[in-house]
Amino acid sequence: MVSETNLIVRYQETDQMGIVHHSVYPIWFECGRTDLIKCAGMTYSQMEKEGVFLPLIELKCRYFYPANYEDEIVVKTGVLEMSPSRIIFKYSVYKKGFEKEIASGQTEHAWVNDKFKPVNLKKYRPEIYMKIKKYFKEDESNGKE
Amino acid sequence: MVSETNLIVRYQETDQMGIVHHSVYPIWFECGRTDLIKCAGMTYSQMEKEGVFLPLIELKCRYFYPANYEDEIVVKTGVLEMSPSRIIFKYSVYKKGFEKEIASGQTEHAWVNDKFKPVNLKKYRPEIYMKIKKYFKEDESNGKE
Amino acid sequence: MVSETNLIVRYQETDQMGIVHHSVYPIWFECGRTDLIKCAGMTYSQMEKEGVFLPLIELKCRYFYPANYEDEIVVKTGVLEMSPSRIIFKYSVYKKGFEKEIASGQTEHAWVNDKFKPVNLKKYRPEIYMKIKKYFKEDESNGKE
Amino acid sequence: MVSETNLIVRYQETDQMGIVHHSVYPIWFECGRTDLIKCAGMTYSQMEKEGVFLPLIELKCRYFYPANYEDEIVVKTGVLEMSPSRIIFKYSVYKKGFEKEIASGQTEHAWVNDKFKPVNLKKYRPEIYMKIKKYFKEDESNGKE
Repeated sequence: MVSETNLIVRYQETDQMGIVHHSVYPIWFECGRTDLIKCAGMTYSQMEKEGVFLPLIELKCRYFYPANYEDEIVVKTGVLEMSPSRIIFKYSVYKKGFEKEIASGQTEHAWVNDKFKPVNLKKYRPEIYMKIKKYFKEDESNGKE
Repeated sequence: MVSETNLIVRYQETDQMGIVHHSVYPIWFECGRTDLIKCAGMTYSQMEKEGVFLPLIELKCRYFYPANYEDEIVVKTGVLEMSPSRIIFKYSVYKKGFEKEIASGQTEHAWVNDKFKPVNLKKYRPEIYMKIKKYFKEDESNGKE
Repeated sequence: MVSETNLIVRYQETDQMGIVHHSVYPIWFECGRTDLIKCAGMTYSQMEKEGVFLPLIELKCRYFYPANYEDEIVVKTGVLEMSPSRIIFKYSVYKKGFEKEIASGQTEHAWVNDKFKPVNLKKYRPEIYMKIKKYFKEDESNGKE
Repeated sequence: MVSETNLIVRYQETDQMGIVHHSVYPIWFECGRTDLIKCAGMTYSQMEKEGVFLPLIELKCRYFYPANYEDEIVVKTGVLEMSPSRIIFKYSVYKKGFEKEIASGQTEHAWVNDKFKPVNLKKYRPEIYMKIKKYFKEDESNGKE
């Protein structure tokens, strides 16, 4: 239950060290989340229109190998944990022609409403909760909730 | 009637050519606009709360000399033209220890409401129009360049 | 002789107006240039390794309609003018499901070497010059050189 | 032994949630590092000219309260750990008029040369090592947190 997002490194994403700047990886992770939610049968845009937002509580990223301009990047995104109040996504970043993972990360989010108040998603928007819950069932059997 | 904004080049703003990426200058221009509106006795945040937004219609930027990491940048911002429907800001960018202008630019904006509908600012929010009008009177006496 | 680049609007590319920030379009243009040069049979990465760089001299962008998170963007990139010392690219931006152009722009670049000295590309790297020249021949018959 | 960096939130740094995008905080941390190294009596630009680079190995960031456009931000930067091969910086982010910390983070870096090879900084550039070592002595007496 992992989505794959394909990206090509933009010139603007490099810095004077000649590699992708570390602040770009959280943006790639976000592209991964967008695709994962799409795989679950809705869009993050729709979720926001229904009053569900996912601000970050925590971000972690580890950098193993650099990425360079024009590299073909693959971001694999999954759900590590999910509860009615929070969700943790995990990410693995690869570049084509290089077998090892070049970076990994995870982001923890709170489910909040359009006034940034934390909500119990199961009660607030049960249909969204069930959609994601059902989709990520297998992952959850291993994790805590 | 020109505001001055002081910035220090961020590492993230450089690219693999070793210079500030060209897409950063429009962001610096925006910092200049923020300061100029503050000089006029309000904040752009307040303007938005009162339902006045300033989306871009046009952007122009010319690059004469590169800027580098840790350079001390000065952005001089003024108003080139102003009407009840539109405003054009102009910008000159300098770096400390270098007498010549390193970049220049201008941005044209429409006055719109919170539904992105163009408004006649003089009628829609006369108090804001007058504040800016009065402040930039001298510039306008010269008319278009 | 126009390349097409497909992009999906990233959440990070939006601002508090709820639309794509205007400074993102020059980055999309750059993605367009990357693809266009690839179409000409080389990569911009290779060009840089052979000592040819393309810093911006001028940027122009006009904004007609906003773009939003998750919009599917198409950037059409072509060459407006080309000479041994300079090149001007032009861009048209579209979003899927909307027939009109949402933005257009052009960027003018100088051919420089790795010390940022302007070069006559025809003499400095004739093979690169011919590759691009040949590829964009049709466009040039209309333009100045 | 903590440096303070003052920043004003840029419009471009916000996203459609109306708050500063989470990927901006690592950029602010970097501004903090730049200032901290300046306090130690050199610049990061000079360090790079002497062949010392500091790519990231790990990034962690926790978000407690949102920041908004035009907020006045203070980033407090210190050194958590330092060895001849690695350095960990820690950051606390505040906004004016709000007493609590809005975000915190830390970044771990390797000392590498211009070929991205890990170096023992004590042997490779003893003068830089001593400058930073001496400066951050007090922090180190406390050891790891």
